[in-house]
Amino acid sequence: MLASETLVPVSSGFPASPLSPPRPQPTPAYDEGGKVLTDAELPSLSAGEASGLMRSGHLTAQRYVLSLLSHINQRDSRIQAWVFLDAKAAMNQAKALDDLAPEQRGPLHGVPVGIKDIVAVKGMPTRYGSAIHENDGPAPADAAIVSILRSAGAIILGKTVTTEFAATSRGGSCRNPRDLSRTPGGSSSGSAAAVADGHVPVAVGTQTGGSMIRPGSFTGTFALKPTWGALSTEGVGRFSISCDTLGFYTRNIDDLSLLSEIVHISSGSRNIPSPLMPSSCRVALLKSPMWPKAGPGTRGAWEQANTLLQQAGATVIDIELPKVFNRCYAWREMIVAAEARAAFLPRYIQAKEQLHPSIRKYMESKEHTSGEAVCEAYDCVSQLRSQWDKIAGEFDFVLTPSVPDEAPVGLEWTGSSAFCTLWTVLHVPALNVPGLEGNSGLPIGLTVTGPRSADRRILEAGRFVGKLFEDA
Amino acid sequence: MLASETLVPVSSGFPASPLSPPRPQPTPAYDEGGKVLTDAELPSLSAGEASGLMRSGHLTAQRYVLSLLSHINQRDSRIQAWVFLDAKAAMNQAKALDDLAPEQRGPLHGVPVGIKDIVAVKGMPTRYGSAIHENDGPAPADAAIVSILRSAGAIILGKTVTTEFAATSRGGSCRNPRDLSRTPGGSSSGSAAAVADGHVPVAVGTQTGGSMIRPGSFTGTFALKPTWGALSTEGVGRFSISCDTLGFYTRNIDDLSLLSEIVHISSGSRNIPSPLMPSSCRVALLKSPMWPKAGPGTRGAWEQANTLLQQAGATVIDIELPKVFNRCYAWREMIVAAEARAAFLPRYIQAKEQLHPSIRKYMESKEHTSGEAVCEAYDCVSQLRSQWDKIAGEFDFVLTPSVPDEAPVGLEWTGSSAFCTLWTVLHVPALNVPGLEGNSGLPIGLTVTGPRSADRRILEAGRFVGKLFEDA
Repeated sequence: MLASETLVPVSSGFPASPLSPPRPQPTPAYDEGGKVLTDAELPSLSAGEASGLMRSGHLTAQRYVLSLLSHINQRDSRIQAWVFLDAKAAMNQAKALDDLAPEQRGPLHGVPVGIKDIVAVKGMPTRYGSAIHENDGPAPADAAIVSILRSAGAIILGKTVTTEFAATSRGGSCRNPRDLSRTPGGSSSGSAAAVADGHVPVAVGTQTGGSMIRPGSFTGTFALKPTWGALSTEGVGRFSISCDTLGFYTRNIDDLSLLSEIVHISSGSRNIPSPLMPSSCRVALLKSPMWPKAGPGTRGAWEQANTLLQQAGATVIDIELPKVFNRCYAWREMIVAAEARAAFLPRYIQAKEQLHPSIRKYMESKEHTSGEAVCEAYDCVSQLRSQWDKIAGEFDFVLTPSVPDEAPVGLEWTGSSAFCTLWTVLHVPALNVPGLEGNSGLPIGLTVTGPRSADRRILEAGRFVGKLFEDA
Repeated sequence: MLASETLVPVSSGFPASPLSPPRPQPTPAYDEGGKVLTDAELPSLSAGEASGLMRSGHLTAQRYVLSLLSHINQRDSRIQAWVFLDAKAAMNQAKALDDLAPEQRGPLHGVPVGIKDIVAVKGMPTRYGSAIHENDGPAPADAAIVSILRSAGAIILGKTVTTEFAATSRGGSCRNPRDLSRTPGGSSSGSAAAVADGHVPVAVGTQTGGSMIRPGSFTGTFALKPTWGALSTEGVGRFSISCDTLGFYTRNIDDLSLLSEIVHISSGSRNIPSPLMPSSCRVALLKSPMWPKAGPGTRGAWEQANTLLQQAGATVIDIELPKVFNRCYAWREMIVAAEARAAFLPRYIQAKEQLHPSIRKYMESKEHTSGEAVCEAYDCVSQLRSQWDKIAGEFDFVLTPSVPDEAPVGLEWTGSSAFCTLWTVLHVPALNVPGLEGNSGLPIGLTVTGPRSADRRILEAGRFVGKLFEDA
């Protein structure tokens, strides 16, 4: 049992409740095979495994939470993934969950979750990575996504590091668990790092450019950015209304499937019900217009993935996008800039000197796009969405790069979103699949994507691809 | 001076701070002509007039706020526009504003504003018209729109009645100041009623179907629903992300122009800089596919407007929409239903028995639209947006009905949004212009609209049309 006072992450600049958790009865945890799990093994469990053990009474939520808090306590002075962590509240939630009868236990029963600090959690402050909000009181209610997870039995452990308003690529002190000298990526830095480092099995992040997929690739985690609109962003800090998208980090594809069911991610006819058959699987390989930015790590992973897919018996087809898609990048910039102007106007008026120059620039740019040009960008992108759905609909899934290469050295810059932005503005589901490595032995992910609302299908594809990478 | 304890509206089910305002020095208020204004005259001032007097030292914010609080105190037991009103905080803000040097006074200096109770105001609770949120604590920060208004010198007086989550047409106890036996319309019931009844010169509302325009028409106020995306909805309760739109109620077109400048509503080349010249003005009269729903009040107002425009020398052209626009209503329903499912899922899980059946229906409907069908609806509507911009761009403005008729009798139903929903889903600016009357002598408004991002132009048109109606 760890000392109560040390549970607040050293990195935290925010007050955390003093911890005096009730000492749970020492109940041994058994895995499915009946083997006793040690405390040190608990942080490796997936959400599904842990909640299964807790639902069946083989593990108490209190012991599980304490083991994760202990792990965080050992690790987070180096990783610095958390900005706020309420150990006492977490233990209280764990106790309440342990007291529930088995039939009342939800699909995320007892699973601690980290929430990016632009998302409201009842009773916790929201700092948005900005000094502007450093004195705000606690949120009176949960953001939509937090409320859903909590109803499913999740324990909301605390708030994770974000870059300023999830809108800059300036890193903070959060480090990549795979190499402490490197960025975990941004803007969902803390959520990705916390999952990669075993602090929690699930964390919530957001993506407006590449803020889910990029940290997923850099930290070697699964990162799902669902179809835009599938998850309500009520209670989430705004950057660009038509690009902001909530998503999940996990270490395990099954956990993403579980989460998708819990949050009711759509299951239209584009979604295949059964596992992919490698031998009859048609895969599009799409280097994307950003391919010249790919470094040796991504080029190597790309070749390896191609080979693995073919060896597995899949039909692999290289595709290119029609040239008009090249214009999508500029349209996206126009849309994001216009929406960011609306989003950041109040903070600009209130405290522009406290905003990062890249945010101020939206307001101060001389290249102020007219309303008509922005409307045209909306309409053109919208046309490309249906065009993309047709293209992608010809295949079981599309594979495309997640990032140019391994995580950059240094914490100042959270890396390039070049390979991600197209999928964000097209509103399509994107899944970072980890498992391959670059020249330094650090993770390189690849993105599985497809038509809008084919989220379940790309999860099935991600399972297939993830298995191939894992076995390689 | 009114008794401090009576300032909390009788209608309020929520705690309000006890009022013990500092007694301001009695400073006489002069209008521009030097005439002394009585307390009874102050609630009739527009925001521009009042802030002008306050900026120039002819009126203190404290006296102005007290006069409005007194007016509310006399009126709101009948109108019931407010759910939360913090008189003490308002007086503190007024005092702080009175202490500002003239050069520090903003364009809304000392102007009390009402905020629809789905919009966060720092230090005030947000109840969303729902028992689900009756015990939530105060908001830790202002919604984007509130922050902008506050920075301009506005005093945030309190929260106004909304229908449940601004998503039902079930009325509450809020009454129409023009006839207490009738609904003020919804969902922005309290904001429209408060402005119509002189409680405040400006109030903030939202529209997802017809929730700005309809109450504007029923209460005889100007109601502006700007181009979608012009105002950030951060901090605003969610119903349908691609239809939810913030807007303003005023009694005066100048106040809408002032507000549009303050909140940086776009001014593209579609916006004309100079006043409309009636003699060279080209006006499209569009009965819309909903015309069969128009009752005698709207039919009479329509003929009157047509005559007035022609008498003023305008070129008036009856137009019809291409038939494909008829499908827009069904596409909008599909979009709103899908987005409402995402928005209300957490509350449905948490407390479905506390949700109105019309909200529960989104979750429980057997006619569950597939993700693909919703995507198709998005894409089709998007095409119609550019088509509409072209059609409307041929005219200085388009005139179309706001509502079927005068406000219905009774408080149970907040009225039909049939004439409003098209403009909401098309993302175009819509302005209710009051001034005409129906068979019972109650207000009938008409809507001025145009292409997306032509907000300033429709405000100029609204000035012209409003003047015609006023002089009639």
